[in-house]
Amino acid sequence: VKRKSLENERCTVARGLDVVGDWWTLLIVRDALAGVTRFNDFQRSLGAAKNILSSRLKSLVEQGLFEIRPAKDGGPYQEYVLTEKGKALVPVLVALSQWSSDYVFSRREIPSAPVDRRKRRPLNRISLRASDGRRLRNEDVEFLSGLHRPE
Amino acid sequence: VKRKSLENERCTVARGLDVVGDWWTLLIVRDALAGVTRFNDFQRSLGAAKNILSSRLKSLVEQGLFEIRPAKDGGPYQEYVLTEKGKALVPVLVALSQWSSDYVFSRREIPSAPVDRRKRRPLNRISLRASDGRRLRNEDVEFLSGLHRPE
Repeated sequence: VKRKSLENERCTVARGLDVVGDWWTLLIVRDALAGVTRFNDFQRSLGAAKNILSSRLKSLVEQGLFEIRPAKDGGPYQEYVLTEKGKALVPVLVALSQWSSDYVFSRREIPSAPVDRRKRRPLNRISLRASDGRRLRNEDVEFLSGLHRPE
Repeated sequence: VKRKSLENERCTVARGLDVVGDWWTLLIVRDALAGVTRFNDFQRSLGAAKNILSSRLKSLVEQGLFEIRPAKDGGPYQEYVLTEKGKALVPVLVALSQWSSDYVFSRREIPSAPVDRRKRRPLNRISLRASDGRRLRNEDVEFLSGLHRPE
């Protein structure tokens, strides 16, 4: 399926999805945040075919989410390292993880979620706040659809 | 590309992506949060082909993110309405929108972002907190890769 390009969308949600709107991207970022740097380790972790992983990583480098560096230990392998732009996806992954814990897992399952590095406990629920600090419920947030798009 | 199923993953990020890990899903949710309920309006907003939109909406209903209701005005059109599970994606969309505003838009562009319904201003930056309330930087959050997966 050829997808519509969202590159020129004014909507931040749409334009964000144009970069990270697929399954692979955010899982690769998750692994990188977990310390994975080498192609073979991404591959083992994700169970992805080499050609697919290779093209995803290439595109993530082009998008500026990863950069390629020579191995720290002087070895022959390149390392894929998250840039600031890539690391800044942490809140997106945390929000997704909290939603998934709440709505996708059954009560009998034990979800694995990101933790606070110091105490090793799951994070507090993300709370949304207005610019004046008021706490917002989900229904207090207003989104614009593509129909509201200014021409 | 046949994708690996993430349905049985213990990782909340992976399992969440199994449900919302594509471009269409979150854009359809964005439009629904913006008040869109009818097939034709989703179609106009997203510029999607009818058959694709139709299969995406069907899958979102199966996943429990949307439910189908008769039109409120008694008209002939069905309405697609977000469930609690669907509405609970608001923080994911806000996090994505903030990342996109920061890293995907150039300074000359005017991003369109979700606003606080009362004041109609963009939200405060999402802040991550530990379970004891400590504010966390992105690097204070620890993720597990697929390599750490218990068998």
